[in-house]
Amino acid sequence: MQHPVRNFNPHLSVDCVVFGFDGEQLKVLLIERPGSVQKSDRNKRYKLPGDLIFKMENLESAAQRVLHQLTGLENIFLRQFSVFGKPDRIPEGDDLNWLEHSTGVDINRVVTTAYYSLIRIDKSKTAKELLHNASWHNVNALPALAFDHNSIIEKGLECLRMAIRFEPICFELLPGRFTVRQIQILYEVILGQQLDNRNFRKKLLKACYIEKLDEKQSGVAHKPANYYKFNKKKYIESRKDLLYYNF
Amino acid sequence: MQHPVRNFNPHLSVDCVVFGFDGEQLKVLLIERPGSVQKSDRNKRYKLPGDLIFKMENLESAAQRVLHQLTGLENIFLRQFSVFGKPDRIPEGDDLNWLEHSTGVDINRVVTTAYYSLIRIDKSKTAKELLHNASWHNVNALPALAFDHNSIIEKGLECLRMAIRFEPICFELLPGRFTVRQIQILYEVILGQQLDNRNFRKKLLKACYIEKLDEKQSGVAHKPANYYKFNKKKYIESRKDLLYYNF
Repeated sequence: MQHPVRNFNPHLSVDCVVFGFDGEQLKVLLIERPGSVQKSDRNKRYKLPGDLIFKMENLESAAQRVLHQLTGLENIFLRQFSVFGKPDRIPEGDDLNWLEHSTGVDINRVVTTAYYSLIRIDKSKTAKELLHNASWHNVNALPALAFDHNSIIEKGLECLRMAIRFEPICFELLPGRFTVRQIQILYEVILGQQLDNRNFRKKLLKACYIEKLDEKQSGVAHKPANYYKFNKKKYIESRKDLLYYNF
Repeated sequence: MQHPVRNFNPHLSVDCVVFGFDGEQLKVLLIERPGSVQKSDRNKRYKLPGDLIFKMENLESAAQRVLHQLTGLENIFLRQFSVFGKPDRIPEGDDLNWLEHSTGVDINRVVTTAYYSLIRIDKSKTAKELLHNASWHNVNALPALAFDHNSIIEKGLECLRMAIRFEPICFELLPGRFTVRQIQILYEVILGQQLDNRNFRKKLLKACYIEKLDEKQSGVAHKPANYYKFNKKKYIESRKDLLYYNF
């Protein structure tokens, strides 16, 4: 005998919040849903990159597959941050119609595992090979998105903010060499607040894994700033003896 | 037309890693699986508390339901930390047989969302109302558990270690009043390493939300230590103007 209430299998998907930085703004990669969305629903024409998982596929492999198809990049920095599974997260009507039409599957409930990913927008491959229906949007000025994708981005950003407090993952978003000003702008747009220049600089340059390069900006109107780079090996070394607790 | 490879719905479950602290060791709450496990599988007779989710149930509600049934407690501290979805995580044989027998459901693949939870072992209600087949086990000396539950606990502990670096959630595991020694032991068992007494004390007492009480231990052989308490309101207040970044 089966318990009817248990014998219930939702669909499972992955969704990716791909953050990028263009030197000024924090961006997120969105997909324009083709066709089938009603006129009344125009402002929900964008969604996160994502897909239902395949039968024998790991969740993380599914997320890598989605991002590879989208950007042509392999081994993208990817971090699982939350599961979204409210029974009513796919509203009946346009969202459900579109999903059933585009997947060819009768949908009842979809539980999605969300990942965030950090990509350098200036990587030529990324820009060139982006699918035609994908585009970067300022994270602070997003339209109303399909499903619960605005909430997913919000939560992803919250987790990114938390993560940069104890891991230098931001460097994934910067070119190999950068100025202090560039990284400060990046921190400011992620944290959503202005930081004191002098303190930021002091704190940053104290880190043993930030290396000063023998190169300066050229062709700039202001006094050329020095370039720095992130030394990952030194970072890992420096963590070995660190005592991990705080109050 | 349906895409056959997509038309696949796994089962969805929640599993809870319930951490407790008895003053000396970090413990985790395990369930003994009744019947149906073969003799050959004796050392896998324990599992984490968990269940398949119901049709219209939120994931977090399912986790709260499991813990409420187990402990009689409401509104338990609960944090989602990861999804475990490898296609082969439920091995054929005893594990699968037991699962199908105990749920009454034909199982192919189960994706589970894992939560960790912090409970004071000394809460009388917890101890009294624990189901007969539940028991506390030292997190450092666990037997081989069912399914991938050892990996889930390991990952949960890793996330707890990360979390105590920037949030005072440890106090969920301590009685309302505690000595410096008690909280140091708790940090040591979670981090798995000894901490320097003097530094720990200094760092702890600097936090404005640790309040010295006008009470000392009584009936102890050594010099009675002072009691302290955690002031949550002050903690929240103190975070308001904090700049959240680090290198």
